[in-house]
Amino acid sequence: MEKRWSFLDAFEDNFRPLVVIELAKGAKEETIEWFTKRIVDKKANGGAQLLVKPLVTENEGENIYLVGASPLRLLLGAETVGLVKECNDNSMRTFTYSSRKTFKDFADDNHNFLTMAECQYIIKHELENLRAKDEKMIPGYPQAKLYPGKSIVRRLLTSGVLVQIFPLHDREELKKLRHSWYGRVKVGYQPLDDIRCYFGETIALYFGFLEYFTFALIPMAIIGIPYYVFAWEDYDKYVMFATFNLLWSTVILEVWKRICAIVTYRWGTLLMKRQFEEPRPGFHGVLGVNPVTGREEPVYSSIKRQLRIYLVSLPFVCLCLYFSLYVMMIYFDLEQWAMDYHEENQSNFSNLMLFVPSIIYAVVIEMMNRIYRYAAEFLTSWENHRLESSYQNHLVLKVLVFNFLNCFASLFYIAFVLFDMKLLRQSLATLLITSQILNQFAESLLPYWLQRRHKKKMKKRMCSLKTDTDLSLVEQVSLEKEMGTYFGTFDDYLELFLQFGYVSLFSCVYPLAAVFAVLNNITEIYSDALKMCRVYKRPFAEPTANIGVWQLAFETMSVISVVTNCILIGMSPQVDALFPDSKMDLVLTVALVEHLLLAIKFIMAFVIPDKPRDIQMKLAKLEFESLEALKQQ
Amino acid sequence: MEKRWSFLDAFEDNFRPLVVIELAKGAKEETIEWFTKRIVDKKANGGAQLLVKPLVTENEGENIYLVGASPLRLLLGAETVGLVKECNDNSMRTFTYSSRKTFKDFADDNHNFLTMAECQYIIKHELENLRAKDEKMIPGYPQAKLYPGKSIVRRLLTSGVLVQIFPLHDREELKKLRHSWYGRVKVGYQPLDDIRCYFGETIALYFGFLEYFTFALIPMAIIGIPYYVFAWEDYDKYVMFATFNLLWSTVILEVWKRICAIVTYRWGTLLMKRQFEEPRPGFHGVLGVNPVTGREEPVYSSIKRQLRIYLVSLPFVCLCLYFSLYVMMIYFDLEQWAMDYHEENQSNFSNLMLFVPSIIYAVVIEMMNRIYRYAAEFLTSWENHRLESSYQNHLVLKVLVFNFLNCFASLFYIAFVLFDMKLLRQSLATLLITSQILNQFAESLLPYWLQRRHKKKMKKRMCSLKTDTDLSLVEQVSLEKEMGTYFGTFDDYLELFLQFGYVSLFSCVYPLAAVFAVLNNITEIYSDALKMCRVYKRPFAEPTANIGVWQLAFETMSVISVVTNCILIGMSPQVDALFPDSKMDLVLTVALVEHLLLAIKFIMAFVIPDKPRDIQMKLAKLEFESLEALKQQ
Repeated sequence: MEKRWSFLDAFEDNFRPLVVIELAKGAKEETIEWFTKRIVDKKANGGAQLLVKPLVTENEGENIYLVGASPLRLLLGAETVGLVKECNDNSMRTFTYSSRKTFKDFADDNHNFLTMAECQYIIKHELENLRAKDEKMIPGYPQAKLYPGKSIVRRLLTSGVLVQIFPLHDREELKKLRHSWYGRVKVGYQPLDDIRCYFGETIALYFGFLEYFTFALIPMAIIGIPYYVFAWEDYDKYVMFATFNLLWSTVILEVWKRICAIVTYRWGTLLMKRQFEEPRPGFHGVLGVNPVTGREEPVYSSIKRQLRIYLVSLPFVCLCLYFSLYVMMIYFDLEQWAMDYHEENQSNFSNLMLFVPSIIYAVVIEMMNRIYRYAAEFLTSWENHRLESSYQNHLVLKVLVFNFLNCFASLFYIAFVLFDMKLLRQSLATLLITSQILNQFAESLLPYWLQRRHKKKMKKRMCSLKTDTDLSLVEQVSLEKEMGTYFGTFDDYLELFLQFGYVSLFSCVYPLAAVFAVLNNITEIYSDALKMCRVYKRPFAEPTANIGVWQLAFETMSVISVVTNCILIGMSPQVDALFPDSKMDLVLTVALVEHLLLAIKFIMAFVIPDKPRDIQMKLAKLEFESLEALKQQ
Repeated sequence: MEKRWSFLDAFEDNFRPLVVIELAKGAKEETIEWFTKRIVDKKANGGAQLLVKPLVTENEGENIYLVGASPLRLLLGAETVGLVKECNDNSMRTFTYSSRKTFKDFADDNHNFLTMAECQYIIKHELENLRAKDEKMIPGYPQAKLYPGKSIVRRLLTSGVLVQIFPLHDREELKKLRHSWYGRVKVGYQPLDDIRCYFGETIALYFGFLEYFTFALIPMAIIGIPYYVFAWEDYDKYVMFATFNLLWSTVILEVWKRICAIVTYRWGTLLMKRQFEEPRPGFHGVLGVNPVTGREEPVYSSIKRQLRIYLVSLPFVCLCLYFSLYVMMIYFDLEQWAMDYHEENQSNFSNLMLFVPSIIYAVVIEMMNRIYRYAAEFLTSWENHRLESSYQNHLVLKVLVFNFLNCFASLFYIAFVLFDMKLLRQSLATLLITSQILNQFAESLLPYWLQRRHKKKMKKRMCSLKTDTDLSLVEQVSLEKEMGTYFGTFDDYLELFLQFGYVSLFSCVYPLAAVFAVLNNITEIYSDALKMCRVYKRPFAEPTANIGVWQLAFETMSVISVVTNCILIGMSPQVDALFPDSKMDLVLTVALVEHLLLAIKFIMAFVIPDKPRDIQMKLAKLEFESLEALKQQ
């Protein structure tokens, strides 16, 4: 076996394993040989020109390979993926190999110029872009068809020959990161740049947003406390508080865009050009010609997809929404029953029972959200979207609509049908707190505990009692390949989105919501950090320049919250008392104020520039330079 | 004098005059010599490498020069400005000289490959980019300072040495265009592609929008007529009509974006890269270093500009708005007086007098709009914006806000303070019709008449009775240089914008508004066409891919109209009668419907793609090709 790798011997001493490839246990010899050959083959021959080493584990039949690359290969790869790095003159520029000397910290012997996460991203990109030439199928698997230009890795994945590809942790770096991130008790910012170096921009941006959002909530929380403690609502009728909240939520969302631009400019992703999007792995269809690329690839009729969306997915989503409302009505029956019980018995126990329906309902909501999530994923995958981005958009839309209704329908019902402010306050508190506790538990603590148990078992089996950092490579890979996979920031953002809903939609009824949100987010930072560092496999870095569709989702929520808060204030008895003669005047005033606030919101969003002036200048400078360069040609 | 031009003799026979340069009568000999030398000089020496010929007129002291260019020079210029043309495979591509053979209709002897308007645009671009090298001032004018990189033409213009630069009409082409455009009575579309070839994209797009908008109004007009004639409002309370109008106005604005994309893709401007924006001619400041370009140029502190905007312009605009409201109150006094007079006398004359205040007010509004326009231009120019685009944005904002209030304040007052639907209907009709008549008169017919008189005088003076096409070049230039200058599509769009306001804001009160708008627009097309072809100097073509800020303005108007229409319907006695018991229910229902309509509007705007699928595919194809080309490098 070793003989085949002899031509790699020259690299042996500086071979640094970056990415692990796990092939199926029974994978055929000829398939493995062909695949590894393609990985190490020269670019000119259609290979990826990377380095591969088999990993010999004690388990029989395991096919695990380590992938690395020479420093030169990585630099060329950085040019291919269009990485943007800082130059000696402090400007950010797209890296090219020929201009490498002008970049900060570049030296031919400095192998830290590219971070490990960047190297792994480059290798992932190169592996995914390893394309079939004239192969008609995967050698050894005649049923796994190939056609010129088809990504080999994707076909291997869908045909089950390839189990997984994942980047290796860097034990040393991870330890340092863990220490500076959550290892010591301290007040301060997260080490965002370190997180970005280790986990990539998408994850770092999530933590950046989480931190920013928590800080942004603090003013709301601070203003909310005296309202709760001293019952200030009697004096100013929550009007000040709600108005502040509404304008504040607009400001924080606009300011986030600016901060996001500053951060991603520093990281270089703001300037990164979008790559051409290939079909997602799950996409299937009849072989045809892509009208855009002119290449042969599976095509799937857009009409068929539309039919699936409108005739199956849409009715299904509506059915789920109906079911969710049905469950809500059951909850109200339970609530009524608990109240009757309390009136009959008037005991401490019956008083406690008052909270039970809300808690049960909160648990049911969480469960329904999770079950629906799987259904939505299945349906969206079945809709057979060609691009990952379009898949994501349809998934996000489905999940957002359902979760919004599922979480907030009962609150809307209580507020605007039952007009029961006391119940609203109680339900809001119960829902918010229960869902936060459940989330933290289900998301981080439970997996962490499972992971620890598993690790202990593994260690016992290996009969070694070494500490984490002393693990041999074989042991490290064996441990990591069994860890769970982190499926992206979707669920984390969703959680924040719903929390934002609890805080802003009914802010004038329960000012303490912001306080609980802040408390939750502080622990959330730690539990999410723990999750990233301890529970899951290292995820591949994904360059990104913004939080994407979530910005829109948060902005929509803040528009809806203007409407709900205005109505709630209009309904409060204190404001009611201001218009003793005419309810008509009250309603008209509320409507006028609502429209004014909405107008102010939109004007503010329009007037506040999305990028700070100095970032605008830097971008203008780069654009000017590229135009000048074009002229020179 | 002729001797200096001897080196141009070789080009004499195929010299085609494209652009006219008029220098001041007393311009110094050395200045002219230097300027013309720079124009004809080689690119390598910092010249524009164009052709120049003096035009000898019978008037003593006139300094008029004709500018042209060799076909090769124009092709190279087309590459510089980034023109996009159609290729042999029907795709649109940026023209480059090296790939010229792949373009449709290209032949070395085909001088019609570039339209005359394109040639003139190229020459204008080259002249404006003629930059000072080491000259410290314009020779002969020590007070007209220059610095390296300063546009010579702009300095000559601001120092008064250069009177004007304008493109020549092509009498033959113009005659053909006139004939197909408005020369014969016919029903059908305008020859948009011909207009674009002759006047460029900005103007063609205006006429395209005007035509589209007129067609789009026809359904509203058709539905409006029976409402007016048969008094249908008694049956469905205008609800159907207004709902249709609101959704329709959203649809037409979204569909326009798609049509705009189709048209500008065909014209190539959709794909044209934005050029780097130079400071506008009027911009002045202390010489400094531009942080973006690193070049020496005047800089002006952004804080000073902000101070001017917020401490002078903003108060001034507010004062004008107050004045406009004050005039409105006078109008209402007059209206009251006319009504009293009518009640006292009850004669035909007094009945006629009822309309007088509205007509006077309409005339006053038009006058105030025009006066304010000058003030706004002066103020915005004084704010000293560096870029033309920023100047335009501030000007448009100022003018839009004032015109909106000036035109619609009285209607809002009548509708929502006086609650007088009869007066609203009457005022709306008077304002709409009077302003349309005034506009058509002031904009086209008056200048046309003045122009004809002037032309007759000129012809008499020249003692020639030739027809238009037989004019000699000298006569043509003498005639054209005296014609008025067309200052862009601003006023034309503004007129349409206000018309859209009259039609949509109160559509449920006066369904005939759409009918009048359609009638007006049909004549507007003809009078605007007349204006372009007969009254004004030929304007330089300006490539553009959309109608810019006007799209936003129209969309905002359609959002406001949702609010006004919902309120108006809620106020109508017929709807009132539906809720006999509770006015409260009425108001709540109206508010609910309004929010629903707004939500539907936003969802529709979000769901309808801005570009049709085939244009999206073509753009994706181009992007893919350029990415592939980059990879090949």
